[in-house]
Amino acid sequence: MTIRIGILGYGNLGRGVECALRQNEDMELVAVFSRRDPEKVKTLTGVKAVSLDDMEAYKDKIDVMIICGGSATDLPVQTPKYVSHFHVVDSFDTHAKIPAHFSAVDEAAKAAGNCAVISAGWDPGMFSLARLYSSVILPEGKDYTFWGRGVSQGHSDAIRRIEGVLDARQYTVPVEEAVAQVRSGSQPDLTTREKHTRECYVVAAEGADLARIEHEIKTMPNYFADYDTTVHFISMEELKRDHAGLPHGGSVIRTGVTGLDKEHSHVIEYSIKLDSNPEFTAGALVASARAVYRLAGEGKSGCFTMFDLPPAYLSAKSPEELRKELL
Amino acid sequence: MTIRIGILGYGNLGRGVECALRQNEDMELVAVFSRRDPEKVKTLTGVKAVSLDDMEAYKDKIDVMIICGGSATDLPVQTPKYVSHFHVVDSFDTHAKIPAHFSAVDEAAKAAGNCAVISAGWDPGMFSLARLYSSVILPEGKDYTFWGRGVSQGHSDAIRRIEGVLDARQYTVPVEEAVAQVRSGSQPDLTTREKHTRECYVVAAEGADLARIEHEIKTMPNYFADYDTTVHFISMEELKRDHAGLPHGGSVIRTGVTGLDKEHSHVIEYSIKLDSNPEFTAGALVASARAVYRLAGEGKSGCFTMFDLPPAYLSAKSPEELRKELL
Repeated sequence: MTIRIGILGYGNLGRGVECALRQNEDMELVAVFSRRDPEKVKTLTGVKAVSLDDMEAYKDKIDVMIICGGSATDLPVQTPKYVSHFHVVDSFDTHAKIPAHFSAVDEAAKAAGNCAVISAGWDPGMFSLARLYSSVILPEGKDYTFWGRGVSQGHSDAIRRIEGVLDARQYTVPVEEAVAQVRSGSQPDLTTREKHTRECYVVAAEGADLARIEHEIKTMPNYFADYDTTVHFISMEELKRDHAGLPHGGSVIRTGVTGLDKEHSHVIEYSIKLDSNPEFTAGALVASARAVYRLAGEGKSGCFTMFDLPPAYLSAKSPEELRKELL
Repeated sequence: MTIRIGILGYGNLGRGVECALRQNEDMELVAVFSRRDPEKVKTLTGVKAVSLDDMEAYKDKIDVMIICGGSATDLPVQTPKYVSHFHVVDSFDTHAKIPAHFSAVDEAAKAAGNCAVISAGWDPGMFSLARLYSSVILPEGKDYTFWGRGVSQGHSDAIRRIEGVLDARQYTVPVEEAVAQVRSGSQPDLTTREKHTRECYVVAAEGADLARIEHEIKTMPNYFADYDTTVHFISMEELKRDHAGLPHGGSVIRTGVTGLDKEHSHVIEYSIKLDSNPEFTAGALVASARAVYRLAGEGKSGCFTMFDLPPAYLSAKSPEELRKELL
């Protein structure tokens, strides 16, 4: 039984899903759907590209549509819209807006009798699961999430919008002393500035006022003002040579106490180190697509998150194999 | 709504569950059931002890029975037996015998219309979940599990059975170079000896032949022969002073590749560091009891493992709270 998959949106994430599907033998990629002229979309694996306008014709040819748009403007529209025609998965990652996105998708999914998983990825996603599992085992404790070292695309974009900037790459870097303090179990109260620093690699236009650019970056509210930020001006060649990838990573650490007098202390840590942020997210999307397919097969409908998915539903292995090989 | 819990078996694990329940406000401990004379069982929190013979009278007073016996002889009998009267949770941890235990419990549970979760804890349990989640995100990769530094009760017991040994404590210790190699993503093939060493602290009877004891330990098949083992003879005072606790820990690491030409490498690591092995296991049992209660409330019956439990079922928080606070 092969699960037939469609990809909606063909950027870094869509290409990551395309590659990931080749590593999952129970799945088959039917087509990539794009806003662009399909004649001009050249896919990595040669799978055909189809215009968004022709998507409904694929209603019976696709089991799960993996929606690979951005969280800012694409997904809030696309996921509720397309769940009317398909079972869907997305990686919606604007934490504060998840409840609203969930409601919109849930309503549309239930009306259509379809299933959706939203916010699959690593944060939200695997990091959220780490927070949940750790909190239930150590109910009296404290959570810490560190991101990096890795490229933040949102912060890189924010720098690019500054006048005189041609291109930029921003790395989020956890403060090692803070991580060590957390791992010790001392449950410190850490400010934003104490947890992460920000490193910026900026290509400026010829003749641009570098001091002004650096000042605008370091004082930018929300993005940089609350952090110790360093700015390095480099050439376009250096940027392309040394900063082309999208590595990322991070840790979720919970420390907590147990025992009659809370005399025992414990540390749980979930860490990832990724060469490619979008390809790791793609892995979570593909596994979630398998779970969606199974939920739909049980006659379920509505919106789900990774919190609702029995872990076994994510795997191509049978429950018997999982118990024997991985339990 | 309070979930009414019973504890069956009152050793280290049972006491751990007793303490953990005080950290979970939606649960209430009704009684501890023991083979011993209840007059002689003094519980940590003053909850009443009841003889195993009087257990059936509690059928309608307890929602979930947490079975805290040993995997060697207790659980293979107790879990299938008591699931006929109660929804149950256990921490059965003999990996090779999990499929047989699952079948026996599943059959009895279905016949009675009750629910069971078996093999909750950290390995099997949280480590199993780490293996499963990592394998679905990185299907092309390799898993490594390291245990320790921590006390292995099975290995300590094995030393105690040697003639002339009064008491002993055995620590399992991961080899740091091996862990570093695995974290690098190089996917080494490691022998048993290359992954862990074993440290033994032994109290010998006066006049015992220490050389013989050391030789018997180091050559013991299955337990020590395949490892680099060190043996330290210490006094009973030293053992009681320096080795009274049951610390443990370990890591599950998976490294894998993604991308069109598998050009990107990733590392996922789940690590724990525990002051008290049984109290951490107790935390997993208690959370699983909550999930069992919910499965039963849905009219389900049969045997489950943590692979089958939607993560949200483990938490006292509502799905809305979880999405808002932890996703």
